[in-house]
Amino acid sequence: MRQKDAALVCFSGGQDSTTCLFWAKKRFSRVEAVCFTYGQKHSLEIEVARQIAADADVPFQLLDVSLLSQLDTSCSLTNTSVEMDREKPADSYPNTFVPGRNMVFLTFAAILARSKGIFHLVTGVSEADYSGYPDCRDTFVRSLNVTLNLAMDEQFVIHTPLMERDKSEVWELADELGVFDLVRTRTLTCYNGIMAEGCGHCPACKLREEGLRKYLARRQSKRK
Amino acid sequence: MRQKDAALVCFSGGQDSTTCLFWAKKRFSRVEAVCFTYGQKHSLEIEVARQIAADADVPFQLLDVSLLSQLDTSCSLTNTSVEMDREKPADSYPNTFVPGRNMVFLTFAAILARSKGIFHLVTGVSEADYSGYPDCRDTFVRSLNVTLNLAMDEQFVIHTPLMERDKSEVWELADELGVFDLVRTRTLTCYNGIMAEGCGHCPACKLREEGLRKYLARRQSKRK
Repeated sequence: MRQKDAALVCFSGGQDSTTCLFWAKKRFSRVEAVCFTYGQKHSLEIEVARQIAADADVPFQLLDVSLLSQLDTSCSLTNTSVEMDREKPADSYPNTFVPGRNMVFLTFAAILARSKGIFHLVTGVSEADYSGYPDCRDTFVRSLNVTLNLAMDEQFVIHTPLMERDKSEVWELADELGVFDLVRTRTLTCYNGIMAEGCGHCPACKLREEGLRKYLARRQSKRK
Repeated sequence: MRQKDAALVCFSGGQDSTTCLFWAKKRFSRVEAVCFTYGQKHSLEIEVARQIAADADVPFQLLDVSLLSQLDTSCSLTNTSVEMDREKPADSYPNTFVPGRNMVFLTFAAILARSKGIFHLVTGVSEADYSGYPDCRDTFVRSLNVTLNLAMDEQFVIHTPLMERDKSEVWELADELGVFDLVRTRTLTCYNGIMAEGCGHCPACKLREEGLRKYLARRQSKRK
């Protein structure tokens, strides 16, 4: 049975996908979450995600795609012997890039969704603050959407509510959705596995903190 | 380092991919093979593939994508409690269809290839005798090729030497490549896991046998 009003959210328990989860809950009457484990250094991520989903009353499923990290060992997120790039190298991606990651995630998400009769997929990728990862671009997501539909002869629709938002605008969306505090205190974005404000010095923390400061300043000046 | 003259073949040890392996060996100076295990009922398949690759002096790598069969349990190839369709149902695919299978295979193949500096991928899918599987169509493969390139910002080229060949023409190609006997006696195509001629009554055996008969008749009439 096809469910027109059902969506599956790719969900990691971070700022972006948590905002997407609540965006989807506003928009679809049935929402489920899928989380991917692939040998991240910080398995706390998964527990954080599971807890947020449980509290939001969203069915949660964990898929193990650790094959990903076995194929390419150059990534600092999954290989503890690789020191993480703190800045984006001028001529390439930071070594936090896992080649093909979003493609693998969305492909398995689509297969899982189809088996549940769900054809709307939601992902928190963004072009605005994307660290140069090619698989966060809108063109890639659109191409993938077509390929998925051809692969399974279905009509999936991939939603990317954050695509054109920078981090300050993601904070703004969370606030509009009424989950600003939840996102601020209960999500995990930090590459070093520290909740909420995080370690403060990894690239993910810097982006998150800068966006928050920018949004709070904007909100403040609006209220005056 | 990019290798212009290197190819990775998606290889299962069946008639089609074995023919592709030898096609690639003629065309590329460096050839490697990747085989996927996903909970097929017949693990003999993997041993057959490994042996053919070893004899052809082709490096062989096995990737476990058994997550595929956990996501959708309607497939008779991976779920022993489902009886296999012997004919294609009029209004859908046979239940030997594993949704998203070729997309998952080729995506992981591309990630693996990239880590080896290989950007040519070879797959034995065919539109001519494709049992209605959507992920064997040329349009799907072309779309996937673009999506892979966008996902990883690379220039993969997917080769499909069998795309327009029916089974009799696949036999013909094997003959041209000098591996007619090898393909006939040492590959495993049968859904019931029986080598070479197979069980004779499953859809894969019927296709293979019919193609062989057709090709032998054609060869015979040419030689007269």
